[in-house]
Amino acid sequence: MLLTECSVLSLLPLGEGRDEGKKVERNMVSGFQVGAVASGLKKTGDLDLGLIFSQDSAAVAGVFTTNQVKAAPVVITRERVKSGACQAIVVNSGNANCCTGDQGMADAKAMTKMAADALNIPESDVLVASTGVIGKLMDTGKIESAMPGLISALSGDGWPDFAKAIMTTDTVPKIVTRELNIGDAACTITGIAKGAGMIRPDMATMLCFVCTDAAAAPEILQALLKTANAESFNRITIDGDTSTNDTVLLLANGQSKVLISGQKSIEQFQVVLTEVLVTLAKMIVKDGEGATKFVAIEVTGADSVAAARTVADTVANSSLVKTALFGEDANWGRIMAAVGRSGVPIKPEAIDIYFDQVKMVDKGQGTGEEADAAATKVIRQPEFKITIDLNSGSQSAVVWTCDFSIDYVKINADYRT
Amino acid sequence: MLLTECSVLSLLPLGEGRDEGKKVERNMVSGFQVGAVASGLKKTGDLDLGLIFSQDSAAVAGVFTTNQVKAAPVVITRERVKSGACQAIVVNSGNANCCTGDQGMADAKAMTKMAADALNIPESDVLVASTGVIGKLMDTGKIESAMPGLISALSGDGWPDFAKAIMTTDTVPKIVTRELNIGDAACTITGIAKGAGMIRPDMATMLCFVCTDAAAAPEILQALLKTANAESFNRITIDGDTSTNDTVLLLANGQSKVLISGQKSIEQFQVVLTEVLVTLAKMIVKDGEGATKFVAIEVTGADSVAAARTVADTVANSSLVKTALFGEDANWGRIMAAVGRSGVPIKPEAIDIYFDQVKMVDKGQGTGEEADAAATKVIRQPEFKITIDLNSGSQSAVVWTCDFSIDYVKINADYRT
Repeated sequence: MLLTECSVLSLLPLGEGRDEGKKVERNMVSGFQVGAVASGLKKTGDLDLGLIFSQDSAAVAGVFTTNQVKAAPVVITRERVKSGACQAIVVNSGNANCCTGDQGMADAKAMTKMAADALNIPESDVLVASTGVIGKLMDTGKIESAMPGLISALSGDGWPDFAKAIMTTDTVPKIVTRELNIGDAACTITGIAKGAGMIRPDMATMLCFVCTDAAAAPEILQALLKTANAESFNRITIDGDTSTNDTVLLLANGQSKVLISGQKSIEQFQVVLTEVLVTLAKMIVKDGEGATKFVAIEVTGADSVAAARTVADTVANSSLVKTALFGEDANWGRIMAAVGRSGVPIKPEAIDIYFDQVKMVDKGQGTGEEADAAATKVIRQPEFKITIDLNSGSQSAVVWTCDFSIDYVKINADYRT
Repeated sequence: MLLTECSVLSLLPLGEGRDEGKKVERNMVSGFQVGAVASGLKKTGDLDLGLIFSQDSAAVAGVFTTNQVKAAPVVITRERVKSGACQAIVVNSGNANCCTGDQGMADAKAMTKMAADALNIPESDVLVASTGVIGKLMDTGKIESAMPGLISALSGDGWPDFAKAIMTTDTVPKIVTRELNIGDAACTITGIAKGAGMIRPDMATMLCFVCTDAAAAPEILQALLKTANAESFNRITIDGDTSTNDTVLLLANGQSKVLISGQKSIEQFQVVLTEVLVTLAKMIVKDGEGATKFVAIEVTGADSVAAARTVADTVANSSLVKTALFGEDANWGRIMAAVGRSGVPIKPEAIDIYFDQVKMVDKGQGTGEEADAAATKVIRQPEFKITIDLNSGSQSAVVWTCDFSIDYVKINADYRT
């Protein structure tokens, strides 16, 4: 089953007046073949090993976890991305290959060698990503046994299987495809992601792989990805924890006749690339572990974007705010308290807070029972926005978060009823 | 009922070889009278208004929330403490008097005036503290009506009632009393605290009031309190949220013949004062909302105490670590991941992690299934210690935390079954 983001995001239309690219049903990108198999790494027998293959060498860009504890595949892939080119990505779920020492590094390299040999390309042109249990050595034998089947599974239509193979606690696969015209030619961008929730019984990760048949120099690609990532995956939070394995890769194989170079084409491509990543990022929050609410936290009237962002992050990560969201309690006192401890200088008596259009706080004080009742209606919706106006400067920022539910605790406590 | 901390803390003996003062059954401190009544601020009809009165003017010191959103009583009390002297503290639960604007300031002042008039002392000698719902105007009429009864309730034995009157989501009152000899004379320190858990349906607070019949100059008292606070209340975390109302006050009325002045007496008093606050702080964590585990997180081998503290705080506040503690899952991967995102430079391959004496991680890698099984036994205890050795420098820090349970979410979501 292919998830189309349109249905999922129907309540959240993206920015208006922008060319966001044409939404398409099929995820094929010229010159890319994708596939997945069940190697046995997941005990359930589900798909757990995926491969993306570009028939020609592709330009590549990547962004990686800022966590100092980095899984072996992150270390290897980050190093290889520096060359600016690659031709394949092998990805597994079920084992994060993290905190696995020298053996883990050898295993991650072995995974790339197995794929390279099977594809008859240099090992250095294969990237690797993993997600799953921390601290467990990779069973590379299973990957080796599965490799012939994985190669056979490669096809232009394999994206949905690949999306399933990288899932951990995700409940739905996440794929977004957009077509856009640049000059006289069309190109396609397809992105696949998995959730920032944390896998049982260990920590998982956010992974995203984006393929385009446009052409771009690696340094341009890296700048495009960095900007899109800042607007998307760096704006979401499930529980404030940062994974050891987070990886976002962007491959451009140039199979279309579109060259991204020069300001206009860069801007056009940036808009659509960002929209692909934002859509995937929102899908991740909506599919956050135990999440029942999708909430945009917007901070306006800040002295700087960084200040707005810090306040928004503090509110979005507050356990007290998030449990109130779950309880459908329009508890603006907890929001005020989180704003006050964010470290950003604020004037409490200047702050206004809105739940969608309902003003609950005016100049730092509650606006009364009528507003409480109206805000309670807002918070009962599955999606809404909380706006915090600091009334100081003119800068703003938005982050997307979910609530903190009993199911989150159950999932992460590996709770047995 | 008076809670003796001995039974609660039996598994956690404090530092050995120190003079921690003599534990005593009665909480009386010479020259202090204490009482509480039910004013109706709590809808349950429970005790909700307390008063501490010193028959003579007392030296005073205070530490307050760092949250920029400060409740009205915090603003007033912080200002009045600067004089170095006071004679009474009036405290209510059921309403935090926060985000209440000018009216809130007037109400907090009115509370001190009511107490001052009833006690026939200057208004400026009365301090005030509140805990409860944010954003609701104080019903000072109830306090005015209750004041005669509150004055009548004052007695040297009123501490347990006072401890109950300041409770919100606390399940037990928290009182600690110690006697110590300095030179030829004895003095007493009695401390009362309420929990850092968050009150339904709004945010609560940590309050602590410590009274001693020793004498000390206000500046010495402030230094003593600052040190003791850093070792106690600043080392605990329930959920990482910081209240708008946190207040710790220390009153010294000099009714004993003990004068705290000069290095030796300061050091002696510091040890016992710190022990009183540490004991209360641990009681608060054990009584944290929904808490089922009391866990000391110790970071050793750090380059500085600040670095050790930052790492310990990050681990202690990680939702993933805390849900694993609740699930009795000795999940060292989540601890490694939290250490890695703390912002403190670390070498993952140098880190050792212990659950009590069980070494689960050696040089950044798991030590195997036998250790897993042993650590699982450790984590099934109600109290244990996790030690993270960074193996870099020689500094260390410890913080105390609790687990993150389904009941925490239920309490804070105001969950209706």
